[in-house]
Amino acid sequence: MKLAETGRFLKNFGFSRNTLVVTDKNAGRLYAGTVLKSLRRAGFNPSAVTLEPGEKHKNISSVAKIYGSAVKAGLDRKSAIIALGGGVVGDLAGFAAATFMRGVPFVQLPTTLLAMVDSSVGGKTGFDLKEGKNLAGAFCQPKAVLIDLSTLKTLPARHVANGMAEVIKYGVIMDAEFFDYLEKKAGEGWDLEKIVFRSLELKASVVEKDEFEEKGLREILNFGHTFGHACETLSGYGPVLHGEAVAAGMAAAAGLSVKLGRMTAGESARLKNLLKKAGLPAEFKKKFKPSEILKVMLRDKKTRNGRLRLVLPSRIGKAEVVSGVPEKIIREVL
Amino acid sequence: MKLAETGRFLKNFGFSRNTLVVTDKNAGRLYAGTVLKSLRRAGFNPSAVTLEPGEKHKNISSVAKIYGSAVKAGLDRKSAIIALGGGVVGDLAGFAAATFMRGVPFVQLPTTLLAMVDSSVGGKTGFDLKEGKNLAGAFCQPKAVLIDLSTLKTLPARHVANGMAEVIKYGVIMDAEFFDYLEKKAGEGWDLEKIVFRSLELKASVVEKDEFEEKGLREILNFGHTFGHACETLSGYGPVLHGEAVAAGMAAAAGLSVKLGRMTAGESARLKNLLKKAGLPAEFKKKFKPSEILKVMLRDKKTRNGRLRLVLPSRIGKAEVVSGVPEKIIREVL
Repeated sequence: MKLAETGRFLKNFGFSRNTLVVTDKNAGRLYAGTVLKSLRRAGFNPSAVTLEPGEKHKNISSVAKIYGSAVKAGLDRKSAIIALGGGVVGDLAGFAAATFMRGVPFVQLPTTLLAMVDSSVGGKTGFDLKEGKNLAGAFCQPKAVLIDLSTLKTLPARHVANGMAEVIKYGVIMDAEFFDYLEKKAGEGWDLEKIVFRSLELKASVVEKDEFEEKGLREILNFGHTFGHACETLSGYGPVLHGEAVAAGMAAAAGLSVKLGRMTAGESARLKNLLKKAGLPAEFKKKFKPSEILKVMLRDKKTRNGRLRLVLPSRIGKAEVVSGVPEKIIREVL
Repeated sequence: MKLAETGRFLKNFGFSRNTLVVTDKNAGRLYAGTVLKSLRRAGFNPSAVTLEPGEKHKNISSVAKIYGSAVKAGLDRKSAIIALGGGVVGDLAGFAAATFMRGVPFVQLPTTLLAMVDSSVGGKTGFDLKEGKNLAGAFCQPKAVLIDLSTLKTLPARHVANGMAEVIKYGVIMDAEFFDYLEKKAGEGWDLEKIVFRSLELKASVVEKDEFEEKGLREILNFGHTFGHACETLSGYGPVLHGEAVAAGMAAAAGLSVKLGRMTAGESARLKNLLKKAGLPAEFKKKFKPSEILKVMLRDKKTRNGRLRLVLPSRIGKAEVVSGVPEKIIREVL
């Protein structure tokens, strides 16, 4: 699918004419022209709002900016809000779509590997509070996700690695064969089409069984995220990319698993090696105090009555949610 | 049900210990002590956040304030957010409950007639943008609604009238017999217990058939609200109470219905008389330009592709959604 076909594709969804494209300066500069032209040609009356790029701007002010643009664009309840960009743009636009007029249709045009393999599917949207990442949000399934793989050609290497963290995660928590495949390919260059496709299959298979994260199934997708989110929050959002934080978080969770006797040191080493080969951190940075990290981790959405719950791998290809790990042991790992 | 029984009642819902009571200065001063004590006695660890009262504060800043308090209170995903107060408190607390951690349980303790008969049931939550009322929001059904009728004893007459506007609305759109009953009672003093009970029955019967307002059924509850919301928005939220604006809006919609030959002048006069007897305005104030009012009305959530849709009564006891009323005729009624 090409971005230039967006309008033709969306014509059949019954959306209202007025529509709003939400993008950021990076994606907007490269692709907004193509998308807007395509929408106009298909009979839509599109407006656009361009956000500042980066996690630092994934906050309530950006949401308010989208609301204002939605009113100016004359959206009604059948008008689509279209996210064009990476995960931050998708999360913000999705939250605005979930809540503007109590819900308008939402479409995702992900242009980064991270957004393609992770945030564009599953329906999690939201924004960060200064106290913690993604602490406000809504579930909002997109009506359509259009993936134009050619946008990955312009993606800097650091951002390819950023997406690969989530890809490797799928291997660890649920698909040993996929992990083997990634180990083989590491270094010789990724086949991103194949990787995107398999990642989406894996994620969708979990999400469709537990869309609203009520059954404990979907939580395994959070592997590396409890540690990772704390790292992002303490860094002030931005300097550490999401995938980098998740990579360090997966390494920490695997280390904890080994310490608890739940996983062998060999399996943990395989994970760390693959992370390094993918250009990702394989250990948790020591710049924050363990007690500070723990405090932020306790605000995690999986916590219940003050008891932290963590996703821990038992081997490559399998992970589960574990509660009641003594804080002392977590502190040692950190 | 008494507010002092809140804790005992909520004990059986499986909520986490930490819980947050959202109130405003008016309701908080009168009832927060009772509710917090009752929660503590039942084993909860409650915190409270007190908002400024009034529609003027039903905005994104108040939502952000609740998020901050929710983090401080140590809420987790099974912790309830409890609204104690009128419609504004309920709408804000409900939106925060719908979106904090992508959704935590929500409980309503309405203390005004308006909140009891209207906003506390149905699951509509949200806040105002400067461009229009309730333009951001979410559907969020409360897990429980506890109504303590004794709170109405301290309610000023103007706020009783404020709630009666929605009560009269139910009669006009769906229950001629209830309207007759209200006509008979007007002036001799309302039996509020009976009125609250019947209003809730009527509202629930509509909402359960069309919870997310997708089938065109629930929209009739919007009778008087398209005109009314425009009046509230243009007044800058606050000086005109919601029920007062809805009353004026119902009078305008009935006038329009008569002009279009959809309803007799006699039926319209019955509505206006009852509104007056209930201490409510029975005509639309002339202080705004019709073109300005129309502009705001077009941002209504029922609008589709620039076509305004209005709820118009055909007789006492029946109303329907009508689209394509010429703007010229609306302007004449205004």
